[in-house]
Amino acid sequence: MPPVRVLVDMDGVLADFEASFLRLYRSRHPQLPYVALDERRGFSVEAQYRQLDPGLAADFVRNIYGSPNFFLDLVPIPGAVEAMQEMFSLNETEVFICTSPILKYEYCVKEKYAWVEKHLGPQFVQRLVMSRDKTIVSADLLIDDKVDIKGKLSNAARSENNLDNQSFNTVLYLFHTHTFQQGSTRQ
Amino acid sequence: MPPVRVLVDMDGVLADFEASFLRLYRSRHPQLPYVALDERRGFSVEAQYRQLDPGLAADFVRNIYGSPNFFLDLVPIPGAVEAMQEMFSLNETEVFICTSPILKYEYCVKEKYAWVEKHLGPQFVQRLVMSRDKTIVSADLLIDDKVDIKGKLSNAARSENNLDNQSFNTVLYLFHTHTFQQGSTRQ
Repeated sequence: MPPVRVLVDMDGVLADFEASFLRLYRSRHPQLPYVALDERRGFSVEAQYRQLDPGLAADFVRNIYGSPNFFLDLVPIPGAVEAMQEMFSLNETEVFICTSPILKYEYCVKEKYAWVEKHLGPQFVQRLVMSRDKTIVSADLLIDDKVDIKGKLSNAARSENNLDNQSFNTVLYLFHTHTFQQGSTRQ
Repeated sequence: MPPVRVLVDMDGVLADFEASFLRLYRSRHPQLPYVALDERRGFSVEAQYRQLDPGLAADFVRNIYGSPNFFLDLVPIPGAVEAMQEMFSLNETEVFICTSPILKYEYCVKEKYAWVEKHLGPQFVQRLVMSRDKTIVSADLLIDDKVDIKGKLSNAARSENNLDNQSFNTVLYLFHTHTFQQGSTRQ
């Protein structure tokens, strides 16, 4: 029986993208309208700001997360680092971080690597996978805050048919206890 | 029938790592011993230089490919860009670039994205996958110059049992005609 492979998303799962975005946006543009965290709906910040004012998304929103140090300075979601370390130590489980960089990759890609090294350590740099399409990465479980991942995980059949349910439950339980009960501002 | 998914490695397949390394190494360290291209053996430059002189690998070799602009300035392997564009246009075939960044990621990861955008265009930035472990990316075919990829491609069974052989042969033929006959300095 091969180990259960878990992919864990970064933004909104490990790193608090939403809170950092709002803090920086309001400090740079105190005069502009904004979306409070408890009013955020949908995966895309940019799409919701576009509804508020089409000019905001193009002119200001993308510049926030395209700025140097934005991704590096993201605050870890409470409990996420502990959940990852505990998952890393589990038998029969292999954990990878799977993240989709923004198209304006100038700072984002390097800073995602640096964030992982800083908060999770070099052993997770080895386990960082960067892909705009997560469905091509083969796994039993994807922990992600995006609800409309396109496509189908390639070995979903294995997941449905042969998955070691004990390990599966252990992984979900870890993330539940470490992070979900403490609340993520992404949700 | 899903499309045939092809992963194409960067260093040694799309980008001429070996020739660029040697050129930069010799220009920086003209007094030091070196390994000529036709004497290169094995995947790892560092390992062969370590055999030549253990101090070389630690002090000089890694600094070459850890330098700014090293990965950005790699010269495309003749024919590789054309092969990628032709593969991209094939029906029933989806092509991704799959590359393993060096652990000293400071410049490497950003520059790999920039190299792909510069030589292949933004549509391939969407198709760039960065992973130290390529075996977790699900594909029918991996075009790579590393002979000892650890693990097993996840849906190798699909590849062996159900692969559309016509597409498979077309992809291999493309790479053969575009690059291998013109010669890669990596081999």
